[in-house]
Amino acid sequence: MRVNAYAAPSAGQPLAPTTIERREVGAHDVLIAIEYAGICHSDIHTVNGDWGPQPFPVAPGHEIVGTVQQVGAEVTSHRVGDRVGVGCMVNSCGECDNCRNGDEQYCVKGMIATYAVTDVDGTTTQGGYSTHVVVDAGFVLSVPEGLDPAAAAPLLCAGITTYSPLRRWKAGPGRRVAVVGLGGLGHMAVQIAHAMGAEVTVLSQSLKKQEDGLRLGADHYFATSDPDTFEALAGRFDLIVNTVSASIDVNAHLGLLAVDGTLVNVGAPPEPLPVNAMSLIGGRRSFAGSMIGGIAETQEMLDFCAEHNIAAEVEVIGADKVNEAYERVLASDVRYRFVIDTSTLA
Amino acid sequence: MRVNAYAAPSAGQPLAPTTIERREVGAHDVLIAIEYAGICHSDIHTVNGDWGPQPFPVAPGHEIVGTVQQVGAEVTSHRVGDRVGVGCMVNSCGECDNCRNGDEQYCVKGMIATYAVTDVDGTTTQGGYSTHVVVDAGFVLSVPEGLDPAAAAPLLCAGITTYSPLRRWKAGPGRRVAVVGLGGLGHMAVQIAHAMGAEVTVLSQSLKKQEDGLRLGADHYFATSDPDTFEALAGRFDLIVNTVSASIDVNAHLGLLAVDGTLVNVGAPPEPLPVNAMSLIGGRRSFAGSMIGGIAETQEMLDFCAEHNIAAEVEVIGADKVNEAYERVLASDVRYRFVIDTSTLA
Repeated sequence: MRVNAYAAPSAGQPLAPTTIERREVGAHDVLIAIEYAGICHSDIHTVNGDWGPQPFPVAPGHEIVGTVQQVGAEVTSHRVGDRVGVGCMVNSCGECDNCRNGDEQYCVKGMIATYAVTDVDGTTTQGGYSTHVVVDAGFVLSVPEGLDPAAAAPLLCAGITTYSPLRRWKAGPGRRVAVVGLGGLGHMAVQIAHAMGAEVTVLSQSLKKQEDGLRLGADHYFATSDPDTFEALAGRFDLIVNTVSASIDVNAHLGLLAVDGTLVNVGAPPEPLPVNAMSLIGGRRSFAGSMIGGIAETQEMLDFCAEHNIAAEVEVIGADKVNEAYERVLASDVRYRFVIDTSTLA
Repeated sequence: MRVNAYAAPSAGQPLAPTTIERREVGAHDVLIAIEYAGICHSDIHTVNGDWGPQPFPVAPGHEIVGTVQQVGAEVTSHRVGDRVGVGCMVNSCGECDNCRNGDEQYCVKGMIATYAVTDVDGTTTQGGYSTHVVVDAGFVLSVPEGLDPAAAAPLLCAGITTYSPLRRWKAGPGRRVAVVGLGGLGHMAVQIAHAMGAEVTVLSQSLKKQEDGLRLGADHYFATSDPDTFEALAGRFDLIVNTVSASIDVNAHLGLLAVDGTLVNVGAPPEPLPVNAMSLIGGRRSFAGSMIGGIAETQEMLDFCAEHNIAAEVEVIGADKVNEAYERVLASDVRYRFVIDTSTLA
């Protein structure tokens, strides 16, 4: 089945309309008519070749919301007409300890990413910047009715990427949580941590987005460009979620942690981060990392967001605006996530 | 009260016999007649000036065991004749959150180290390489009867430094724990982790001490100089306790952790350690640090060691052999801890 898509023909080239192949619907598959696809910074890194050679053409997109158009004979979890979502992965081995523990993202054989990797059948996965996708039912999420489908799309990556570490490191009542960076991920982290009951502080380069931060649920807002911030907040936080992919001064941020506090990176700066062991030892602190979340946890996150009326703040665009949107993402000129209306690809 | 001691007259000079001042026994103080004092690598760093200028003369020693000779009017926790111990700290503010939580070592005003810092009364603390010490009763530990006093001395630093992270990061049945380095700290970590019920692996530069490691309770022993080690053990451990103060390849060691695993440094290499965020993100791993333990936890550790018949393996020396012992510690030529018999100072 060939379907319309918007894809990068080669590294660094503008994305353009094209068609891509989708496999036949197998017994365990779901065919999804895509309605919306979020634009994640990872999409840009991938098509620019920042993360190495890619199997071009590449149609990115791993924040997918749509409706079920057809299901395979063995599928009982989803029905035609259901609103569903697909995130950053579409398969995993299902047999290793991590898969069995619900941590498919850490599959020891490697999870199958939603685009630009080789699938179990030898084909290359293609993402959500297209009209349809065929996905194993085990990797298809149910989007609760209360969620707006466009605003729900970014939950599939930005939402789970921040929800998972907030849950694991116990954001909740009585806990002080800082979020570094108020972008696509950060604006989700603030809303989720606030809904979990934590006291939330945004640490942003400047105070430019302070009003937004407070509206989204932050209790405090500080500029990291002000050196006083690091003195005023020394030893304050139980958890810091760093959503910034550029290198930050890790030791300065570790100094903001209370005893037993954890700084979690959800982005991966290209350069190694120099960590002074004393920054950790001096307060039994941890520097950790976290990558998206498992499938069951992603469903839990969607249900949590629906329950707490949380979603991304989005700017919905036609597919022909993707290249322009990429420029604006790189310039941090979006509040807070672009989402492609894929009906414009039809 | 002036008492005999062995002290460094200035940075890098050999230690020599001298006398030092001990304060009068206050209402909350305990006067201890010292029997044994362990030699810790920190002692050498301090007197060599590796950690900055020091208030010379400095009598080091923070692994102290002795008997109570006198108690202040308000002391009820210890009695004359009791066998007691003193570790790395002799006071703290007692009022901050950390002190109130039993984490006196992370006192926000700074714990009072056992030697070479300014005490609350303005005097300079002096350590255990001496015949007597006066310590606030709240920082005096009870040494259980079953423990040999010379072999118990190193528990006050090497023991608690490894016990605390093993306890906090849940070494126990079903957990795979690696200990990096089989020196003074490492040989305690192996015994304690084994007694806690964990499966214990030693990661040492070579296989030179393999026989000792297995005798102390390790289930496996690998050489980190062999690159195959890092392949064979990839993703294996729930917890790695790094007892080596020299820089190690942190990313290679993080690769040995299972999902949710933690690498804990208990030593502080002088140089920052370059950490690849992907080493953490790729398995929700943590790089952490830990420094000794609180007073209540130190007592718990002493009781645990007595119950499990655990102690340091020591070479007892006269005070006149201290400088020679320092040379041998620097050459890693001790199995596994030197302990000074302080009766040789009388």
